[in-house]
Amino acid sequence: MPDGNDAMKMVPVDQAIDFMKRSFMAVGMPDADAGITAKLMADADLMGKDSHGIFRLPGYIGRIKAGGVNTTPNIRIERETGATALVDGDNGMGHLVINRCAEIAMDKAAENGVGWVGVHHSNHAGAAAVYSNMPMERDMIGIYVAVGSANHLPPWGGTEMLLSTNPISISVPAMEEKPIVLDMATTVSSFGKIKVLAQRGQMMPEGFMVDSDGKPLLDPRKAEEGFLLPIGGAKGYGLALMFGLLAGTLNGAFFGKNVVDMNADPSSVTNTGQFIVAVDIKAFNDVDTFKRNVDDIVRQMQGSPTMKGFERVRLPGETSMNAIDARTKTGLPIPPQLMRLLDGVAGNLGIVGLS
Amino acid sequence: MPDGNDAMKMVPVDQAIDFMKRSFMAVGMPDADAGITAKLMADADLMGKDSHGIFRLPGYIGRIKAGGVNTTPNIRIERETGATALVDGDNGMGHLVINRCAEIAMDKAAENGVGWVGVHHSNHAGAAAVYSNMPMERDMIGIYVAVGSANHLPPWGGTEMLLSTNPISISVPAMEEKPIVLDMATTVSSFGKIKVLAQRGQMMPEGFMVDSDGKPLLDPRKAEEGFLLPIGGAKGYGLALMFGLLAGTLNGAFFGKNVVDMNADPSSVTNTGQFIVAVDIKAFNDVDTFKRNVDDIVRQMQGSPTMKGFERVRLPGETSMNAIDARTKTGLPIPPQLMRLLDGVAGNLGIVGLS
Repeated sequence: MPDGNDAMKMVPVDQAIDFMKRSFMAVGMPDADAGITAKLMADADLMGKDSHGIFRLPGYIGRIKAGGVNTTPNIRIERETGATALVDGDNGMGHLVINRCAEIAMDKAAENGVGWVGVHHSNHAGAAAVYSNMPMERDMIGIYVAVGSANHLPPWGGTEMLLSTNPISISVPAMEEKPIVLDMATTVSSFGKIKVLAQRGQMMPEGFMVDSDGKPLLDPRKAEEGFLLPIGGAKGYGLALMFGLLAGTLNGAFFGKNVVDMNADPSSVTNTGQFIVAVDIKAFNDVDTFKRNVDDIVRQMQGSPTMKGFERVRLPGETSMNAIDARTKTGLPIPPQLMRLLDGVAGNLGIVGLS
Repeated sequence: MPDGNDAMKMVPVDQAIDFMKRSFMAVGMPDADAGITAKLMADADLMGKDSHGIFRLPGYIGRIKAGGVNTTPNIRIERETGATALVDGDNGMGHLVINRCAEIAMDKAAENGVGWVGVHHSNHAGAAAVYSNMPMERDMIGIYVAVGSANHLPPWGGTEMLLSTNPISISVPAMEEKPIVLDMATTVSSFGKIKVLAQRGQMMPEGFMVDSDGKPLLDPRKAEEGFLLPIGGAKGYGLALMFGLLAGTLNGAFFGKNVVDMNADPSSVTNTGQFIVAVDIKAFNDVDTFKRNVDDIVRQMQGSPTMKGFERVRLPGETSMNAIDARTKTGLPIPPQLMRLLDGVAGNLGIVGLS
């Protein structure tokens, strides 16, 4: 039997979006909302973030069918000032909720220089960069932070999994160069990436996880028995903690012990917290001057001589930008194990499948 | 001869502040500004941040005498919206400049939920936590980010030192527990910490720096020949880059090749960039509810069973908070080599010294 890569099927992006949209409509989401969610999931796949796009469809559909997600939410502003809002996501799909928050943040930033929108009663929203990228269309810098949807990280020096991968994404537009987009978990690896390795039958490199004695864990199928490692030891723990306080606790969302493992428990409300910030460039600088200076910084980094063992210096987001170009042409790679799961979703919902 | 620790002299905080104030007045700073700067420097020492307080006095005085810093700056708002400001520091001491920016950020946050204040033509401002702590007095969360004052970090995979330690500090108030304060460089170690090791004749642990071949560098006296390492490899490089773009490039401050090494070159204007954000808690949550929930998170972390090799789980900022309590009583520890430098400053300026 060929391995995952050999048997990979390439699916045109539009077909993948249509399939995801059909799936969400079949479980009760209004057409427009199903379309937006499907599109934002495919955006993650286009960027090469395979663990945060269509890969999540079976899990999302499972949660909706188990009653864990509200398919017809009333997403609304609960508190508001000139530059901030607290949004109640009403337990809707995170993609829809953050899409709305990004709009509000940009409108606030257009008026008052910066917009900071926090949310509670949201859900997993997929790839962080999808949202931090949005403000760039209006010449703004985007920052997005989320409480991860399952705790796999203990505090530094501890063994109780009280923290998640709590990611941050920051998107900065350039003039001629591609934007710089840093989308990172505060752990060495996201748990999603480890699930993809398990699905593909590949091993983890040392440094991704440790077992309960602190020894390296390499088999991704044993991931549930181990702990993720934070970047920079105590520093990454500190970042995960602070991001959790800002994205979760501040917004009245779950953080710490009350975080619901969205995969292990499909029916409990997750009360996920996130926040998105839009920073209007022209509040600080001439927009063209700024973008040209970002170009210059990109070229400075690329122009650095390389360290032994490296071919070239990369910019954050470069791999994703290249993936968008490539996958727009080739379609999205769907490994056979994922295709079987997607076929299962189609069969259960009685809709036309992908394969 | 006893080593540094044995011969450490304990100096009462007020005496240290008075000495620093005298020093700044002797080189032309107005009394009030000299007092504010001295106080903010001593705040760093109180927190145990020995590389960012009085340790810097000889360097600061050297820069002022060489004409690199303006002792009578006109610190002013250059651009302004409801929630943002761009401040021109007029090449004043960074401490004074950021102290002013923090006030503006808090006033903006009181009015519009969040205040984001960026600055250019600033200078090194000492310890980041000093500034991110300020908004807590008004029930706000503080975030402070700076472009470091000397490039010792290459982009990941490169060998040209285009980046600095670009630190972030985030301060979150609690109710009964001490505030959580994360103050970290995006490199494994700050360069200041390495200078302190060199002054004390101690070696660096592996992982702080590498030489130009990427091999571990352990002798802090050879620090100028090597590179700092970012936390989490490419991720720490990404954070340092993004923080530089936000604190430097966005504000029209130096970042990348044009960063001036403030110690190697005392007379050039550094055009340092920083930004400070104040987030008003009540724009998102009931203040008391939030603080009690932060207490709960602190206790959750502290209550975690410990990993083999750890005595207990710490919170970010815990060591600094304990240092404040201890040093308020014992005074600031000044090692003999630093005392000789401070005596040299006093002699040069013709003022009463510390020893």
